[in-house]
Amino acid sequence: MDVKKEALEKHYKWKGKIEVVSRAPINTKEDLALAYTPGVAEPCLQIQQNPELSYSLTRRENLVAVITDGTAVLGLGDIGGLAGMPVMEGKCCLFKEFAGIDAFPLCVKSKDTDEIVRTIELISDSFGGINLEDIAAPRCFEIERKLKERLDIPVFHDDQHGTAVVVGAALINAAKCAGKKLSELTVVINGAGAAGIAIGTFLLGLGIDDLIMVDLCGIINREDNYENPAHTEIALKSNKKIKKGGLAEAVIGADVLIGVSKPGLFTEDMIKTMADRPIVFAMANPVPEIMPEEAKKAGAYIVGTGRSDFPNQINNVLVFPGIFKGALSVRAKEITEKMKLAAAYAIASVIPDNEITAENIIASPLNKSVADSVAQAVARAWKEGL
Amino acid sequence: MDVKKEALEKHYKWKGKIEVVSRAPINTKEDLALAYTPGVAEPCLQIQQNPELSYSLTRRENLVAVITDGTAVLGLGDIGGLAGMPVMEGKCCLFKEFAGIDAFPLCVKSKDTDEIVRTIELISDSFGGINLEDIAAPRCFEIERKLKERLDIPVFHDDQHGTAVVVGAALINAAKCAGKKLSELTVVINGAGAAGIAIGTFLLGLGIDDLIMVDLCGIINREDNYENPAHTEIALKSNKKIKKGGLAEAVIGADVLIGVSKPGLFTEDMIKTMADRPIVFAMANPVPEIMPEEAKKAGAYIVGTGRSDFPNQINNVLVFPGIFKGALSVRAKEITEKMKLAAAYAIASVIPDNEITAENIIASPLNKSVADSVAQAVARAWKEGL
Repeated sequence: MDVKKEALEKHYKWKGKIEVVSRAPINTKEDLALAYTPGVAEPCLQIQQNPELSYSLTRRENLVAVITDGTAVLGLGDIGGLAGMPVMEGKCCLFKEFAGIDAFPLCVKSKDTDEIVRTIELISDSFGGINLEDIAAPRCFEIERKLKERLDIPVFHDDQHGTAVVVGAALINAAKCAGKKLSELTVVINGAGAAGIAIGTFLLGLGIDDLIMVDLCGIINREDNYENPAHTEIALKSNKKIKKGGLAEAVIGADVLIGVSKPGLFTEDMIKTMADRPIVFAMANPVPEIMPEEAKKAGAYIVGTGRSDFPNQINNVLVFPGIFKGALSVRAKEITEKMKLAAAYAIASVIPDNEITAENIIASPLNKSVADSVAQAVARAWKEGL
Repeated sequence: MDVKKEALEKHYKWKGKIEVVSRAPINTKEDLALAYTPGVAEPCLQIQQNPELSYSLTRRENLVAVITDGTAVLGLGDIGGLAGMPVMEGKCCLFKEFAGIDAFPLCVKSKDTDEIVRTIELISDSFGGINLEDIAAPRCFEIERKLKERLDIPVFHDDQHGTAVVVGAALINAAKCAGKKLSELTVVINGAGAAGIAIGTFLLGLGIDDLIMVDLCGIINREDNYENPAHTEIALKSNKKIKKGGLAEAVIGADVLIGVSKPGLFTEDMIKTMADRPIVFAMANPVPEIMPEEAKKAGAYIVGTGRSDFPNQINNVLVFPGIFKGALSVRAKEITEKMKLAAAYAIASVIPDNEITAENIIASPLNKSVADSVAQAVARAWKEGL
């Protein structure tokens, strides 16, 4: 099918992919008196006395905002919040279809970090959680950090952490399949934007010891200086051997090569220099850093991409519905590292060990049972504490 | 029934009176490709090129925000936005049930006028219209004025204008019933808060010539000075004869007495001093300024209240669903006076002249056909221009 054409036609037909419906009947005077005045005064007064009751007496317990400033929409870049709304609506559909969560799309018409933070803070009482979406780096780091400081509801920048968790899940099973231990892997990540930094940070928490980040400037290392504070920070945590050079140098002897960068950046020659049974996640979308057949030809043992038409689709729809479902179910005040790690292991465990193969390291994004597994693991992790 | 108890039980059972559902199926890879990536990129790009397409390619064409700061919730006062959310959700149910409009409740955690305005402005691209709700006077006037200046979507403070329009509709039929012309009526409004000022201003537009506003300070007149700029403004437009004194003095010889004030403020003695066939709208809720039976005993010819258990319930649910439905249908940039007047006449005309009686001047709030009549009239008024 011609996806562009058909998607546009469908969008004209749908006239919006979300809809707000009433859960209370409004047909009789009694209905009006209970759902509206005068009856509604009572739940209002109860919430005034005990704000926590907002979770029981309004929709807040199941309600997430999907918020963007439109600065990094898909691969389209800074197209603005209004133009990004079809993506936000789509995300809300996924929340509902995969986790039963009511999600509502909002765009903020500002590019000022503090103003975006303040706007979200001021409307945050309307929601049980905040999913940040398609916000450009490095602004996204600061927005998320400030919101996490100020709000006592979960805040989650999916482009960072959803991606990190699903890559972590895929790597857990890929390492098993390749017969290697996570702690013994050398992992190279190409692309140190929001997703790359988040993946790197998350993999360190997952037990990866030897992490090498590569960006346009080459291998990130603690001896060089960086304008981007996120690069300075990750430089101190990674690349213990202080390797220098470009991607080609980084890849030599590596067990894992992860791309969150641009089409065509991985070559067969590079993959040939990797360690035994190399693992390649080429996640640029829609065109990966290297096509799976080429990577395989060059010796890659396991290949994952972001695409649905190849095996091992690494897609964060496996993550955010379950993460929020779990967090909301226990009224978690935030999404902790421990909760994200629990999510990664829960996703990985959906494929039983005896079914893991090089072509089957991760569940299908359409497997709607994953969200419940993730939710249970995430809820347990919150209850067990930091 | 014990409304308080039952309403609270229902609210615990409902766990929120609104729900966000998906209009796009998400079951197959093809579904994902059309509603989400990669297909969703195409509608995004279309909107980037032509922002007006946001009305066709997202839910914006049918979507209204119901926004409060929680400073004047029902008769409960400044209970805060979070505690006001059951009312906002209820309002959203009414939008959906009466007009098929998707309405989403938001509370803004600020009492600073400019900050509230800026917050709403920054998220306004997410909606096709803004319904302001339960915001205290005089802040509500400034918030609405500034938003109307800055936004090119309809902004409507329902507590002001919804109330004004429905009172206007009731008065059109009440005057017919009493055999009096609107232009010859002397109308007294007791209570010069947000609703009272809005009703007075609207009735002037409806052709009322002799309007007298009364507040705690007595009859509002152009020779006295007022702290509240809204009082200064209405003083110049009303009370041409420069009457002074209190409510009792104002009422003498009046044809119409409208209360948006407090229980018990109208007495039988006052009503006895009114003109022939007096019209009394005692709209304090839930206990009116005078009970209908007492008003009747004192000679009131027509009595209306805000209550469903007496005849002539004057309730703005007859107004806002149709106003927004009409405005959204023609993508009106604002709600003009002409649109509000058209709404009032449309509501009045739901009762055919030969069915108007002293007990039947206005349609039941549960009459779901009213919204369509209002929407058509409002759309026509917008198209005909200012």
